[in-house]
Amino acid sequence: MTIYLDAMGGDNAPVQIIEGAVAAVSEYGINVTLIGDEAVINNVFENRSLSRTGIDIINVTEKIEMTEEPVAAVRKKKDSPMVKGALLVKGSHEDAFISAGSTGAVLAAATLYCGRIRGVSRPALATLVNIKKPVVVLDNGANADCRPEYLVQFARMGSAYIRSAVGVENPRVGLLNIGTEDIKGNALMKEAHALLKEDSTVNFIGNVEASAVFDSEADVIVCDGFSGNILVKAVEGTAKLSFGIVKDVLMGGALNKLAALIIKKDLYAKKALLDPKAYGGAPLLGTNATVIKAHGNSDATAIKNAVRQADTLVRNGMLSALEEAIKQQEENK
Amino acid sequence: MTIYLDAMGGDNAPVQIIEGAVAAVSEYGINVTLIGDEAVINNVFENRSLSRTGIDIINVTEKIEMTEEPVAAVRKKKDSPMVKGALLVKGSHEDAFISAGSTGAVLAAATLYCGRIRGVSRPALATLVNIKKPVVVLDNGANADCRPEYLVQFARMGSAYIRSAVGVENPRVGLLNIGTEDIKGNALMKEAHALLKEDSTVNFIGNVEASAVFDSEADVIVCDGFSGNILVKAVEGTAKLSFGIVKDVLMGGALNKLAALIIKKDLYAKKALLDPKAYGGAPLLGTNATVIKAHGNSDATAIKNAVRQADTLVRNGMLSALEEAIKQQEENK
Repeated sequence: MTIYLDAMGGDNAPVQIIEGAVAAVSEYGINVTLIGDEAVINNVFENRSLSRTGIDIINVTEKIEMTEEPVAAVRKKKDSPMVKGALLVKGSHEDAFISAGSTGAVLAAATLYCGRIRGVSRPALATLVNIKKPVVVLDNGANADCRPEYLVQFARMGSAYIRSAVGVENPRVGLLNIGTEDIKGNALMKEAHALLKEDSTVNFIGNVEASAVFDSEADVIVCDGFSGNILVKAVEGTAKLSFGIVKDVLMGGALNKLAALIIKKDLYAKKALLDPKAYGGAPLLGTNATVIKAHGNSDATAIKNAVRQADTLVRNGMLSALEEAIKQQEENK
Repeated sequence: MTIYLDAMGGDNAPVQIIEGAVAAVSEYGINVTLIGDEAVINNVFENRSLSRTGIDIINVTEKIEMTEEPVAAVRKKKDSPMVKGALLVKGSHEDAFISAGSTGAVLAAATLYCGRIRGVSRPALATLVNIKKPVVVLDNGANADCRPEYLVQFARMGSAYIRSAVGVENPRVGLLNIGTEDIKGNALMKEAHALLKEDSTVNFIGNVEASAVFDSEADVIVCDGFSGNILVKAVEGTAKLSFGIVKDVLMGGALNKLAALIIKKDLYAKKALLDPKAYGGAPLLGTNATVIKAHGNSDATAIKNAVRQADTLVRNGMLSALEEAIKQQEENK
């Protein structure tokens, strides 16, 4: 198995990416191959006296910037980490590629250079959150406009993913909606609801409201990429805001600061539950490879977690599980 | 001015509704007219020894249940609080109606019996949150499917509302989207973005991501009713979850409980910022009346806040401001 890591992508590249790779080697014994400008990478290793054990480097001369139009950029810059990474993992059940760079460029590179699993209409970004139990939300932004059939595929792919990622058997699928009753929702969700209800290979449990996502029985929350992104970002923003409010209270006067000293450690440990970076990144499900989009502002810990996640997904055969899930659907037609 | 209040609607009706009305009279000196089953209402006053000062009652014999199909229910049950309330405030610039009952039924009653302001395509539910500063999100669930033009009207109505509600001059309008760049979003948001950019009477500042709603410059966040509902409910659910986590930490052992004693009061005061009930209810903007949908699980405090909100909106001439905003738009065409 090889885990390829884009050393140049993300707000904190290359330093935090490289430190994350080194941490993955030392903490989990997972070897990592960095893709990027070798001189820049070597410089980071030297300046920070990092160990090169378990790390390989593939040199590339180009880099895709956040401001570039994704499809044009990945077509043009063939010697960039994203294109190189996508080509290296194409069709492989043994390797994975991780990038914290531009989401659009990662999607474009994976779709263009890895291709899609046979039968998949649209690959989807799957975000795992684990507050009370693991829940995967998909699509989280790969497809802003969806047709109802896409959502059924997301349900199947999300189910295969959560089985591989955390071992949930017979995952329960909920549809993100604005009411729990079957007839609720916009036109897309009403149609998707009807299709999911009929699909014998999805364990569909009905609509789930945004306020109940983490309290519901659902293991997989299916939605279009627009709504999914609104949901995940609202959760992220509100958690930050809430803990910011708690922090303000804890800094408000000498007695409160004493309280802060007492609970600080416990609070930080719990707060991490609401940090999406704790779970690694969002795999792009449906391309013919294991590709993970790490959060743009990933630090070394987030990258280390993404490497571990990639390792788990390859070991547990996620790509084969996805192929199987889509094949079953084809046969079911 | 008369504030009419549906005494029978909501999870905690009639007791909390009536107690909320009594609190509005005693705390703010705002008189309230309750609409409901007079015998039931009188019973609550007697059993709880509440003061009848400043409270009138209008007796009705019917009631719309949460499980009823909204449009059919408001067509049939003419002697229900919702229909009676809608008819009483129709066309009035001096009165308001508040209900914590079924959202669908409130929308249906207001649209059917109050009619729309001339030129309004779709009335919208506007939710005000005031974490760092007041922000109004609309539509929050009245229109699950929207056309881009609707969102431009929401922008104008939301601007008129926040001016009346909290006195924001020249409100800045943001479009809820999955990226800040102009070209981001689904088909609806891309088109709405282009229309808003061209509209000279809206102070449009561009796209706002769900994670940045309360940190952005925007006073008004415009979206379709599906996305708005996902946003507001995700904020609500995550705030509850976050403070639940903090509460767990504060209950974890004797020392932590000491910390809890110290910060409890400050924490509760701050936590209220994230409670949507603190701001009253969501007015339905665009009908020919002032109609407020209070949260389904409103307690007496939430109802009291909604009464105060209704009083403010009537005093500040919200309905005239909405008429003016839509008229300007017509003239602008």
